[in-house]
Amino acid sequence: MKILQPPTIDEIRSAHDLIRPYIEYTPLLQSSQLNQISGAKLFFKCENFQKAGAFKSRGATHALLQLTKDQLGKGVVTHSSGNHAQALARAAAMLGVEAHIVMPENAPAVKVAAVEQYGGKITFCKPTLAAREEATEAIIRDCKATLIHPYNDYDIIAGQATACLEMLRQGPLPDFILCPVGGGGLLSGTLLAAHYLSPATKVIACEPEGANDTWQSFRQGVLIPSVHPKTIADGLLTSLGSLTYPIIKNYVSDVITVSDEAIATAMKLVWERMKIVIEPSSAVPVAVALSSPDWIQNKTATIIISGGNVDLNKLPWK
Amino acid sequence: MKILQPPTIDEIRSAHDLIRPYIEYTPLLQSSQLNQISGAKLFFKCENFQKAGAFKSRGATHALLQLTKDQLGKGVVTHSSGNHAQALARAAAMLGVEAHIVMPENAPAVKVAAVEQYGGKITFCKPTLAAREEATEAIIRDCKATLIHPYNDYDIIAGQATACLEMLRQGPLPDFILCPVGGGGLLSGTLLAAHYLSPATKVIACEPEGANDTWQSFRQGVLIPSVHPKTIADGLLTSLGSLTYPIIKNYVSDVITVSDEAIATAMKLVWERMKIVIEPSSAVPVAVALSSPDWIQNKTATIIISGGNVDLNKLPWK
Repeated sequence: MKILQPPTIDEIRSAHDLIRPYIEYTPLLQSSQLNQISGAKLFFKCENFQKAGAFKSRGATHALLQLTKDQLGKGVVTHSSGNHAQALARAAAMLGVEAHIVMPENAPAVKVAAVEQYGGKITFCKPTLAAREEATEAIIRDCKATLIHPYNDYDIIAGQATACLEMLRQGPLPDFILCPVGGGGLLSGTLLAAHYLSPATKVIACEPEGANDTWQSFRQGVLIPSVHPKTIADGLLTSLGSLTYPIIKNYVSDVITVSDEAIATAMKLVWERMKIVIEPSSAVPVAVALSSPDWIQNKTATIIISGGNVDLNKLPWK
Repeated sequence: MKILQPPTIDEIRSAHDLIRPYIEYTPLLQSSQLNQISGAKLFFKCENFQKAGAFKSRGATHALLQLTKDQLGKGVVTHSSGNHAQALARAAAMLGVEAHIVMPENAPAVKVAAVEQYGGKITFCKPTLAAREEATEAIIRDCKATLIHPYNDYDIIAGQATACLEMLRQGPLPDFILCPVGGGGLLSGTLLAAHYLSPATKVIACEPEGANDTWQSFRQGVLIPSVHPKTIADGLLTSLGSLTYPIIKNYVSDVITVSDEAIATAMKLVWERMKIVIEPSSAVPVAVALSSPDWIQNKTATIIISGGNVDLNKLPWK
């Protein structure tokens, strides 16, 4: 049954129990070299090892498992060219449900291929917001498919919260959690889980300078959408939603922005030293830690590595 | 005390006990996507997560721990520009021992930097075998430093064998082990450990076509060194040694070669699907598995991922 309020701890625990058979319990890694550079004791929750390569599998799977048999029979739809599309296509295929994915006709071939690989049924549209919404509504009208929003949905938020639930079981109750923020699904879920399970932990939202709507919203106390965001962290281009913003406003300790240059440097350093493939969005909180801020010195900090889907032919370094 | 015969199982176990405080017990990973492509049930022993980024830390650390206090006081020396140099420099630094590394003056800056990072004392020489040997002998003469050969040394072989010891504890006793081969230190150690602990397992040596001295030696029954080897698998350019060859001749089930193109494809696929950074040498056995040979169908196979040290500015694709 759909969750209609910010999820409770029981709802987050229940989400975790529901999705466990379908997702990875991802590892919590450490790196002595990154500890040395940052001055902190860092833990990395590695959602790059999650099914379909990103935390998005948690929310998408949970949202599907909340639907009725009748709804499942009519399929689901979303508009996304990123990790949510892949995650939804994979979760739907696993449950034998049709997943319609609305993508702009100029979406990169590598992203189209990834959705197709998971059996998603792609509808291409012109690369405008109006065309995207029109295409999505047409599918809802024609097939009675259920819209699964990438982040502005409490079932999605409860699903994404399970990454934090796991990492607080696997590692310490840290002084800080560093979490990337785009639409705010992962961040709001993390804030709720940390609030329930480790209220003394400060959750820091980490955002690219070129898509700083959360930073602006936090500073001004009202929801401010992104205007022409531009960053290499392509998973963080979206603006906060009406459901994610209030949770973030209530519980986040701070919002810190980093440059694309710092993101690329942090990403390369993680590949070199930790030997794991992380996407630019995941490198955003790493970049914050590697800037060695005073407040992190000799503290414990858990960084959420949100995903590892990268076009290996287009790396953000020479 | 130096091991003077092919190591026994007790010597391999003792090597493992000795080095455990200094090395990683690396994970054994699986990938449903790579299982699907290969038709086998694959396990990946991830020595890319090993200290200094490769299995070489096992042998180098073990060889150092066999030296007397007097020998340690005079330092150690090796000629290598690759993973053995980094591993020896790291192990020596950890034990407070001086490590002299003889490197050709044209060694890539990234490799020089890596050895310096671990505190190795570099001596540059002309890029010829004669110059390299002369420089090494001068250090041995002047400092009384002990030579730690990259592979032709039973202490090194016993150390490298511990990767196989671990993986046979972590996973199944597999039908096959796929192991890359360069100088044969890892392969001969693996062959001995598998012979003692899982005699029914067939160990397959995997080699680049462009550096196929093991394939030639195996086919002709005599040790044939490489002449002008050329491959992107830069860790596998060396020829077998007088100590590694007899062990390989006795115990290896087969030697299979793969093209550089297949190596690059396998490497990229592992990065994309498994989200781990592996070096070209590690991709050699993966390429063998991904060619889906008949003999691997529906069998279990453990692949040794030998290391993850890659120059991220020079990737072998695109």
